[in-house]
Amino acid sequence: MKEITGGITAAKGFYAASHAAGIKYKGREDMALIYSDSDCVTAGTFTTNSVKAAPVVWDSKIVHSESLVRSVVINSGIANAATGKQGMDLCENTAIAMSSLYDGRKDSVLVASTGVIGMQIDATKICAGCAELFEKKSDSADAATAAAKAIMTTDTHKKEIAVEVQLTDGKTIRIGAMTKGSGMIHPNMCTMLGFVTTDAAIEKKLLQKAISAIVDDTFNMITVDGDTSTNDTYVILANGQAGNTVIDSEGEDYRLFYEGLHYVSEKLAIQMAGDGEGATKLFTCHVKNARSVSDAKVLAKSVVGSSLCKAAMFGNDSNFGRFLCALGYAGVSINVEKVDIFYEADGKTMKIVENGLGTGYSEEEATELLKSESVTVVADMHMGSAEAKAWGCDLSYDYVKINADYRC
Amino acid sequence: MKEITGGITAAKGFYAASHAAGIKYKGREDMALIYSDSDCVTAGTFTTNSVKAAPVVWDSKIVHSESLVRSVVINSGIANAATGKQGMDLCENTAIAMSSLYDGRKDSVLVASTGVIGMQIDATKICAGCAELFEKKSDSADAATAAAKAIMTTDTHKKEIAVEVQLTDGKTIRIGAMTKGSGMIHPNMCTMLGFVTTDAAIEKKLLQKAISAIVDDTFNMITVDGDTSTNDTYVILANGQAGNTVIDSEGEDYRLFYEGLHYVSEKLAIQMAGDGEGATKLFTCHVKNARSVSDAKVLAKSVVGSSLCKAAMFGNDSNFGRFLCALGYAGVSINVEKVDIFYEADGKTMKIVENGLGTGYSEEEATELLKSESVTVVADMHMGSAEAKAWGCDLSYDYVKINADYRC
Repeated sequence: MKEITGGITAAKGFYAASHAAGIKYKGREDMALIYSDSDCVTAGTFTTNSVKAAPVVWDSKIVHSESLVRSVVINSGIANAATGKQGMDLCENTAIAMSSLYDGRKDSVLVASTGVIGMQIDATKICAGCAELFEKKSDSADAATAAAKAIMTTDTHKKEIAVEVQLTDGKTIRIGAMTKGSGMIHPNMCTMLGFVTTDAAIEKKLLQKAISAIVDDTFNMITVDGDTSTNDTYVILANGQAGNTVIDSEGEDYRLFYEGLHYVSEKLAIQMAGDGEGATKLFTCHVKNARSVSDAKVLAKSVVGSSLCKAAMFGNDSNFGRFLCALGYAGVSINVEKVDIFYEADGKTMKIVENGLGTGYSEEEATELLKSESVTVVADMHMGSAEAKAWGCDLSYDYVKINADYRC
Repeated sequence: MKEITGGITAAKGFYAASHAAGIKYKGREDMALIYSDSDCVTAGTFTTNSVKAAPVVWDSKIVHSESLVRSVVINSGIANAATGKQGMDLCENTAIAMSSLYDGRKDSVLVASTGVIGMQIDATKICAGCAELFEKKSDSADAATAAAKAIMTTDTHKKEIAVEVQLTDGKTIRIGAMTKGSGMIHPNMCTMLGFVTTDAAIEKKLLQKAISAIVDDTFNMITVDGDTSTNDTYVILANGQAGNTVIDSEGEDYRLFYEGLHYVSEKLAIQMAGDGEGATKLFTCHVKNARSVSDAKVLAKSVVGSSLCKAAMFGNDSNFGRFLCALGYAGVSINVEKVDIFYEADGKTMKIVENGLGTGYSEEEATELLKSESVTVVADMHMGSAEAKAWGCDLSYDYVKINADYRC
C-alpha cells in the first residue's frame, strides 16, 4: 500500500466538482459533487441519533437496498435536519435534478448536508447547483481538493487522502476519501460527513462488513464535544473499474483492501479529532493491557472525552488526577492501584503515575511535553492484554466562542 | 414546613467551626467541623467512580455500619484521592485526633476532602486543625456560614439552607444542610460534598431510604461538565434531640421528614448547578409527557449536559436544533415529529418548536428571553405522562479558564 495524491478522484472513473450556491455562507463554495461514470455498489454507516437528518433517511434507504449509485450531492451551511416533509422532499428533488443529467434514476443519487439544524434549504439553489456541478465535474486532483473544501463548516483545513493497493492478481486498486467534521463530534458517529471512492471490484456484503468494522475502530473512537450529530454519514462507492478479480470472500485480497480502507479512515479520523472546534492540539489516549478491547475503548474514550482532561490539556497542566478520575468513572471495572500513566509527545515518554500514585516527576518537563501539538496519554491498566486508542482535542476558549454564536 | 436561618447548626445539638490550616489555599479558611453533642445515626450516598478518594472509603464503611457518629472533619484544597495507603492513614489519624477530644471512638468521625486529585495532604496541619476546630466550635448561625465557606473550592458563593417541619405529635424538627460543588459535577453523583444535620429521631434504615431516593431526584439530576468526581459525598447525621416519636415506618411523619429533606436537597442542588464553574446562568431542562420517569430523566440530563446546548445558552442563541439533537442521542426512543419545545424565563413562555419544526418565532424575543439568569427549556415529548427536571449551567470562557490551570 502506498499513499498517493488525488483524494476523492484518485480511483478510476470518479469525478468531483464544487460550486458556490449561496445556501448560507457568502463568498465560498458550499456544494460538492462526487460522480462515477459507471454504476457503484455502496456501503455505509449512519448516525445513531434518533433525530436523523433527512439526507440520512434518504441515503440509508438506498445504501441498504440493491440500488447502484452514481453520484453524491453534498452541501454545507444547513444540515437539513429537523425539517420534516419539506426536508425529505428536498432530498428527492435533488436526486431528480442530478440524475436527470445522466440516467434518470433518482435512487442512484446520495445526498448529504451539514450545518445548522432546524433551518430549511432553498430548493431552487440546490437544483440550480446540481446543473452547475454536473457541468463542471472533473477527475483532476484540483477538483477533488475543491470538493473537500466546499463541504467544510467550522473545519480549519480540508481533509482528503488516497492510497493505492496491489492485489494478489497483480491489479492495482485505489481508495480515495474526503471527510469534514469539527464540532458536534462524538461516537457514534461524529458530526461528520465522509465519502470514499474506490475502483475495486468487491461484493456489497463485504464492502459493508469492512466499513462497519473500520468505523468502529476509527471514527467512533474520536470525540470533540460528546454531542452525537443528526447527520453523520460515512459511505463508500465502489465502481469496479480497476478490473481486479471481484473480492467475494474474506481472503488475502479482502485483507489488503481492508488495510487500505482502514488506513484512509484512521488518518482522516485523526485529522478530524486534531481539527476539533477550537483545538490547539491532538489529544490521544492509548489504553494498554485492559481486560478486553471493549473495556480499552470505553476507557480511552472516557479520557479524551472528559471536559476537565481536555481543559487541562489546553492549559498544558499535568493534572494527572483527572486522567485517573476519568478512567474511574468510565463504567468498567478497574484497579486504580495498578494503573501506570505515561505522556508521549515529540518522541519522548515520561512516566507520571505508577500504581495509581504520582511518580514525583518534574512538573517543568511535563509542562514542556504537554505543549506539543500532539500528546498521547498512555494508560497501562495491568489487567489483561487488550488495547485501544481514542482521539480528541483540547477544550479551548475558541470552542466556546465558535459555539456560543454558531448561527451568526 | 418553613425555611429558617442557621444552616448546618439550625438543628438542636449541632455545632460548626472553621479554620485556616494552610493546606493549599492561602489567606482563607480551608477546614470545617460539624459536631453533635450526642450520638447520631447516619446515612449517605457516595461517588460511583471506581477511583474512590480515601475519605469516601473511610466514610462509606462507617455509614454502612452500626457506628454512631459525632463529627465530620472536612478540608478543601486537596482531595485526598489517588493517594494510596498514605491517604487512608490520614483519614484514620484525623479520626483519632478529633475523637480524642471527646469520646475517643475513631469510628465516630467522618472525614471529607475536596480539591486537587493526586496530591498528599500534610497530616500535621490536619491534626493541629482538629484541635483548633474543636476549640472554636459554636452552634451559632455565623459558625455555620463560616463552615459553608471553608469547604468551597471554585464555588463563587456558599450554599446552606435549613427548614423546620412540624410532625404529627406536635414536635418540631429541623433539617440544616451545606454543600459545595462547582466543577467536576455530574451524576452519579457530583463533585460535591454535602452534609445534612437533623435533630429528628428516625431509624437508620429509613434515613438511608430517604436520602438515596432524594439524591436520585436532586443531586443526580445536575451536571456541570460530565465528569464524575472521586470524592462525592452526601451524608446526613440525625441526633434525635427534637424529642419526636421515633420515625420507624413510612407513615405521615416519614412523609413530612422526606418532604423537608427533599426541599433542602433540591434547593442546594439547583444552587450548585447555577454556580457551575464559569456559569453565567442556571440552565434547566423540564421534560414532560415522556413514557417513563426514567426516560424523562435521561432526556433532561442529555440536554443540560450537551456542550453545544450549553455553549448556545452562553451566547443567548436560540439554536433549537441542538436541543432536538441532544434529545435524539440521549439513548431512549423518541418521536421527533411529536416534540414541542418551549423556553421559560422571567415568568414568560415562548413556543419555539412544534411537532419537531421551528415555529417561526421571533429571534429577537427569544434572544431577550435567553438573556435571563435562569432559563428553562421545556420539552414536551407527547409520548406519555412522566416528567423530570435536570439542572445545569451554560459553558463559558471562564469554565475553560478555571480548568486550564486549576492547580496554579
